Amino acid sequence: MQTEFTIATQGPGFHDITSAVAAWVQGTGVRGTGLLTLFVRHTSCSLLVQENADPDVRRDLQDFLERIAPRADDPSMRWLRHTTEGPDDMPAHLRAALLPVSLSIPVTDGRLALGTWQGLYLVEHRDAPHRRRVAAHLSP
Amino acid sequence: MQTEFTIATQGPGFHDITSAVAAWVQGTGVRGTGLLTLFVRHTSCSLLVQENADPDVRRDLQDFLERIAPRADDPSMRWLRHTTEGPDDMPAHLRAALLPVSLSIPVTDGRLALGTWQGLYLVEHRDAPHRRRVAAHLSP
Amino acid sequence: MQTEFTIATQGPGFHDITSAVAAWVQGTGVRGTGLLTLFVRHTSCSLLVQENADPDVRRDLQDFLERIAPRADDPSMRWLRHTTEGPDDMPAHLRAALLPVSLSIPVTDGRLALGTWQGLYLVEHRDAPHRRRVAAHLSP
Repeated sequence: MQTEFTIATQGPGFHDITSAVAAWVQGTGVRGTGLLTLFVRHTSCSLLVQENADPDVRRDLQDFLERIAPRADDPSMRWLRHTTEGPDDMPAHLRAALLPVSLSIPVTDGRLALGTWQGLYLVEHRDAPHRRRVAAHLSP
Repeated sequence: MQTEFTIATQGPGFHDITSAVAAWVQGTGVRGTGLLTLFVRHTSCSLLVQENADPDVRRDLQDFLERIAPRADDPSMRWLRHTTEGPDDMPAHLRAALLPVSLSIPVTDGRLALGTWQGLYLVEHRDAPHRRRVAAHLSP
Repeated sequence: MQTEFTIATQGPGFHDITSAVAAWVQGTGVRGTGLLTLFVRHTSCSLLVQENADPDVRRDLQDFLERIAPRADDPSMRWLRHTTEGPDDMPAHLRAALLPVSLSIPVTDGRLALGTWQGLYLVEHRDAPHRRRVAAHLSP
């Protein structure tokens, strides 16, 4: 069984998709075990499993991404070649290389086997609004 | 077929889970092909496939993680907001964002298709002892 | 259904395996949905989904890898212990820890659900020529 999730984004940040994904898994009627795979169909945003409790964790993660792969208009990034799509584009590809493009999560007793503090996030790396598509596949 | 592995950790470092995982795969009686998925149910430790020969490789990887995402009491990390859970907590989330939360490994002739030098590791990022749970799913 | 792809590499860089992988998926005769998993059987090269349009994106990604995990003969890397296999070996393991070892991609209507700008790459991290093996598994 497959579906596709669409997430409208408004600049860099974390979008919690846990409820939408869990609702789809339950809606398929799977009762026993299974395997959910998510795949983001873009190269300038990412999927991530991260802490769902303190929002400061996501803020610190966002700052970390901006420090590890700064924008192209930062003096430390003068070595970048691919700058024609804006100062946020090539850093978006760099961040997308470091974070997951696909995630696989077992389903047990009809539910995602996420830990207590784990949320599923679409992480946007671009400045402009985007509609992001995440393909989902549920195997028995 | 599913199971859950529990790994008791005592501070940051690599725990080799290759034998435990391989033994479970063989114990399922799978003879032909299959697909093993591992998923760690936490946001402050990771899964990793890495070299299983020279232990210095893991030591260097551990030092690399400490350099790329230093502890919160390092002067370079004063920008962190989420510090209430100790100086090892937010760096653990940063490292967990960079390393895999899930791994998928084909099974061929009833065996994991790992390369000669590949081992499966649970990488602990926290200081305190933890019991880490890794969900496993074997698809036909 | 399973196969193994072999990629001959000649030093660090990106090898586009999209066509080879897509051709194998189509050759299996899968018509509806499925799930493709790729797994690279080495610890000093990686798989990556990245932009397939401007080659400068891959050049910048390559430079980024060389900056985030420089060669062992770079003065900033004197802390490395594992240097007996050459100045390119331990950085190769570091880069392999940051990029994917496995990828899972849904198949829809018999085709990989890759986005328009997504290509599949084998990223070589070592200097010497290598024959790299990528295991592939297609689930229904």
